[in-house]
Amino acid sequence: MNKVYIAGIGQTPVSESWDKSLKELAGDAGMTAIDDAGIGYPDALFVGNMMAITANHQAQLATLIADWLGFHHKPAISIETACSSGSAAFRMALMAIASGELGSALVIGAEKMTDSPGDEITTSLATAADAELESDFGLSFVGLNALLMRRYMYEYGWEHADFANFSINAHANAVHNPNARFQDPITIESFIKSPMVADPINLMDASPVSDGAAAIILSAHPIRNGRKSVSVVASSSMTDTLSLQNRKVGTRLNAAETSTKAAYAQAGLTPADMGLFEYHDAFSIMAALSLEAAGFCQPGEGPKLAMEGKIKFDSDIPVATMGGLKARGHPVGATGIYQLVEATLQLQERAGATQVNRPKYALTQNIGGSGSNIVTHILQAE
Amino acid sequence: MNKVYIAGIGQTPVSESWDKSLKELAGDAGMTAIDDAGIGYPDALFVGNMMAITANHQAQLATLIADWLGFHHKPAISIETACSSGSAAFRMALMAIASGELGSALVIGAEKMTDSPGDEITTSLATAADAELESDFGLSFVGLNALLMRRYMYEYGWEHADFANFSINAHANAVHNPNARFQDPITIESFIKSPMVADPINLMDASPVSDGAAAIILSAHPIRNGRKSVSVVASSSMTDTLSLQNRKVGTRLNAAETSTKAAYAQAGLTPADMGLFEYHDAFSIMAALSLEAAGFCQPGEGPKLAMEGKIKFDSDIPVATMGGLKARGHPVGATGIYQLVEATLQLQERAGATQVNRPKYALTQNIGGSGSNIVTHILQAE
Repeated sequence: MNKVYIAGIGQTPVSESWDKSLKELAGDAGMTAIDDAGIGYPDALFVGNMMAITANHQAQLATLIADWLGFHHKPAISIETACSSGSAAFRMALMAIASGELGSALVIGAEKMTDSPGDEITTSLATAADAELESDFGLSFVGLNALLMRRYMYEYGWEHADFANFSINAHANAVHNPNARFQDPITIESFIKSPMVADPINLMDASPVSDGAAAIILSAHPIRNGRKSVSVVASSSMTDTLSLQNRKVGTRLNAAETSTKAAYAQAGLTPADMGLFEYHDAFSIMAALSLEAAGFCQPGEGPKLAMEGKIKFDSDIPVATMGGLKARGHPVGATGIYQLVEATLQLQERAGATQVNRPKYALTQNIGGSGSNIVTHILQAE
Repeated sequence: MNKVYIAGIGQTPVSESWDKSLKELAGDAGMTAIDDAGIGYPDALFVGNMMAITANHQAQLATLIADWLGFHHKPAISIETACSSGSAAFRMALMAIASGELGSALVIGAEKMTDSPGDEITTSLATAADAELESDFGLSFVGLNALLMRRYMYEYGWEHADFANFSINAHANAVHNPNARFQDPITIESFIKSPMVADPINLMDASPVSDGAAAIILSAHPIRNGRKSVSVVASSSMTDTLSLQNRKVGTRLNAAETSTKAAYAQAGLTPADMGLFEYHDAFSIMAALSLEAAGFCQPGEGPKLAMEGKIKFDSDIPVATMGGLKARGHPVGATGIYQLVEATLQLQERAGATQVNRPKYALTQNIGGSGSNIVTHILQAE
């Protein structure tokens, strides 16, 4: 596949937005990316979004955003793979450019979840599970992750408090990110004493329902604006069974393992080459499983990496360097683009107080459902 | 863009399905296409669907269908552009193959609308309109088309009965299509006397809410199985304002005009070269506007073509050759793939009683919203 470059980026603060609608958030992020790239209007719009049709009564969101941005008579398309929708849209734009059909594209991840009552959003989020086998019986999405976490704790002998450092690290990094939902640090005490959501997952294990939009301009050509050029050197997507119950090994992210392996093979790289890993810490159990699936440790050892401080921004394998899903926030369809925007900021050494020391490669991984739809990218600074 | 070939096709009958779920319908169409192509399992799955998250409580439908088909550890992605979702998914698969990333892909369009009560489906369909400017005020999707039809009748002086031949032609062709929802002919009398839905649109102007799935295997290489090879020689998508009220000329499909022109230019062809036109006759007014936008007549002259019999399968510009949306049925996210499957059957001279006389090129056009998201393809028989 031909090389594709990240020409510009944009993001809105992740928040509970009362003054901007979904299209306005998306438009703000999109226009920022267009200004950042400085190559004029792109050839097409790709939008990653999960639940506009339920949460905002809006289908064909991409058409609406194209309309709002003045992209008339250009293609616009919405991509949906639950919580990995953002990076799935990025991957589609990548292939469209590599095909020669487009010279450039704007990719926006956007989600506005806080307009709906909590029970409606819980219902919308549950559609990411298998309706016939899971959610129609009342199993919520956090409930599924709770089952997974309980089993993992049983298999490997971890206690709930052993997961604290994933969330503590995410919040510590988010303190310095003006776009993060939560910019306050948390402690081991506040982690342990946090209210229970679905045993063993408490509020500090879980990423927050949020509003936000992030955007990237992709181009067939590198942009010469004095910054380091960032290109995409690997793109891999894999699926697993939608339901947890149908997996042979429920406590491993099988599709994340194969997707990450394929990405390393495409780029000719190993985990040791990665300067940082923007992982999908929707719940602390997902943080642990992601580190294991991406080859940074053996199955069952994820919490050990966190307890040893190896996941800090100035240590071995920096993760959630700008707050992750836990503290930056998780507007589901937007999250994949936030991850790629943050990886780009790190590779261009524009990440501020949590800047990783001169990273050359960044790994990003976005997870749809309980590990069922995985999208992995490796970005390179040149 | 590199040439891409249609290697296999499949479809389920369009129906009100009580014995098959959405994933089963999609799986049936998908397996038929895989068998038809005879090249084994493809590299990835693309799914066009509009409303599984509301009508079937299911997000990431592509992952579920991949799971059902046994496509584990392969990419699966859902595409949504309202009623043009099917051909938008086809277009994405086309570019992914042309990029060299995939050698083949299965594209499935699937929708199951009849499990929900009528008011819920009306609400889901209304999400194809602009929530802030149209649907949140109670304007339904058929209501929007009724406003458009009334204005068109006023501008050009047509009466309601002048639209009858679009529906009569569609039903006449569907008589011979075993996969059509309605296989009975209608008359001018039954057209005129049909119950009103939203004045001036009556039941015989409107395509039916339906269940169904259609599938295509796309390949980077032509398939040698004794049939005519069918390739994609043009693919073009354009958007217009989402809301009708923001268009300068509300009675023309502006984006369909630019999309069709771009497709003709890509292929180096004109309307006169087209052997047939599978158009998007969701309502009879859309049939008229589509013929005009695709360059087969001047604005305001669509009904004249139908009245003169020129749209019959054995006349100048055959349309809806296997029943169209009106009589084959309109399972919204599946429709674009049904159009492409039927065009392929025509080009391979496998269309039965309504076979067009040796067509070399087929034009297909899928419309999302009230003309807001257009996807146009030209297929070639070799």
